[in-house]
Amino acid sequence: MEVQIAISKIKKYAASSSGDTAEVIERPNGGMSVVLADGQSSGDGAKWVSSLVVRKVIQFLADGVRDGAAARAASDALFTERNGRVSATLNILSADLQTRTLVITRNNPAPVVISYENNIRLLSEPSDAVGLRRDTRPMISEIPLDTGLTVVVFTDGLIHAGSFYGDSMDICTSVEAELEEEDPSPDKIADSLMNHALKLDRGRPRDDISIVVLRVVNNGTDMVRRMTVHLPVNAIGK
Amino acid sequence: MEVQIAISKIKKYAASSSGDTAEVIERPNGGMSVVLADGQSSGDGAKWVSSLVVRKVIQFLADGVRDGAAARAASDALFTERNGRVSATLNILSADLQTRTLVITRNNPAPVVISYENNIRLLSEPSDAVGLRRDTRPMISEIPLDTGLTVVVFTDGLIHAGSFYGDSMDICTSVEAELEEEDPSPDKIADSLMNHALKLDRGRPRDDISIVVLRVVNNGTDMVRRMTVHLPVNAIGK
Repeated sequence: MEVQIAISKIKKYAASSSGDTAEVIERPNGGMSVVLADGQSSGDGAKWVSSLVVRKVIQFLADGVRDGAAARAASDALFTERNGRVSATLNILSADLQTRTLVITRNNPAPVVISYENNIRLLSEPSDAVGLRRDTRPMISEIPLDTGLTVVVFTDGLIHAGSFYGDSMDICTSVEAELEEEDPSPDKIADSLMNHALKLDRGRPRDDISIVVLRVVNNGTDMVRRMTVHLPVNAIGK
Repeated sequence: MEVQIAISKIKKYAASSSGDTAEVIERPNGGMSVVLADGQSSGDGAKWVSSLVVRKVIQFLADGVRDGAAARAASDALFTERNGRVSATLNILSADLQTRTLVITRNNPAPVVISYENNIRLLSEPSDAVGLRRDTRPMISEIPLDTGLTVVVFTDGLIHAGSFYGDSMDICTSVEAELEEEDPSPDKIADSLMNHALKLDRGRPRDDISIVVLRVVNNGTDMVRRMTVHLPVNAIGK
């Protein structure tokens, strides 16, 4: 069994930097966590906010703090730092090998897509961004790490792709279509969602877009842990 | 132009956890850093040490501290924490988009392989592990981020692969052979080195092995930043 994760990110067209930050970190008791934040507005200010939130969360996770407590602490830290004037959405997706579960933490109005055994469903209970008030609590879901599980997490740039042109993207349907292929890799699913969004935004994303796809597959043939990063040099200023 | 990075890791056969820790983190002024540490001995104790060192380094890097200063601070932190009784090797590989350079930081007797325009060379000046004494300084090399550049960083498990059986691995020659293929991807190079090492260790690695391959390529076709993680579930305890 292997947990496979793909992250695809693009910044808003012509923005100085992406206001989204995504980092992957090893969990001290086994497993990996993906931490994704989208800072309010765009450009350098938003980058500052999302970096702060992600940095706080990964520090807490590295110390063994539970995901929910890490999200609450990061919210309080941003609230304290900016007096509740700035928000960020936050998602934590953790493959916890100690409990053999996937822990999904949402401080984000945007839903999370989960597919398992040909059933696709949305985690879409109301959920607030972090930083605006004290005691902001995340929505937390914990599900077994079973083969065939697919989870898709994204920032609102994906939801709003095309909206400037009166188009819109049905993310659930897009994910379902991808899963009808035979055993699609997470990077293929992420790429396909990203390409669809870019097409709807006429190739010039109107907002930062980040997509995280996690799949649990059976075809882990060896015991090697692998990671790849592709960093377009002109794409990033930051 | 695109910076592509691949990391492959395997733990010592039958060890509780890998004593190597590798993390990738975004640089606050643009770019990415890979931080790799190998804790003294193996198993849980070594994991604790390498995690501490990597965590310290990524916290400093996230705050904008320069790589060399981050390495020295991590060394002092380990020295203080364990009274100089425990060491770790440390490598930082940073694609710094502000300076458009690759910064290679070594606190590791193991060399770093660099290939550019068909010349392969080793960074192998004497370099000490961190944690054993105050004022341990890293070796730092800074080279332009140019298309065609390939850098390979590894822990000593790769160097010693096969030595128990009287075999040994010529890493430079292996990298050279890979680069003779047409435009090999970093993950292909890392996989090939890992497979070679595993063969020499008869499929049961006698030490934790971690390999980082970075290439600067021309074929970045879009502005999407991508990351993938493959995490074998039985491979890892931690």
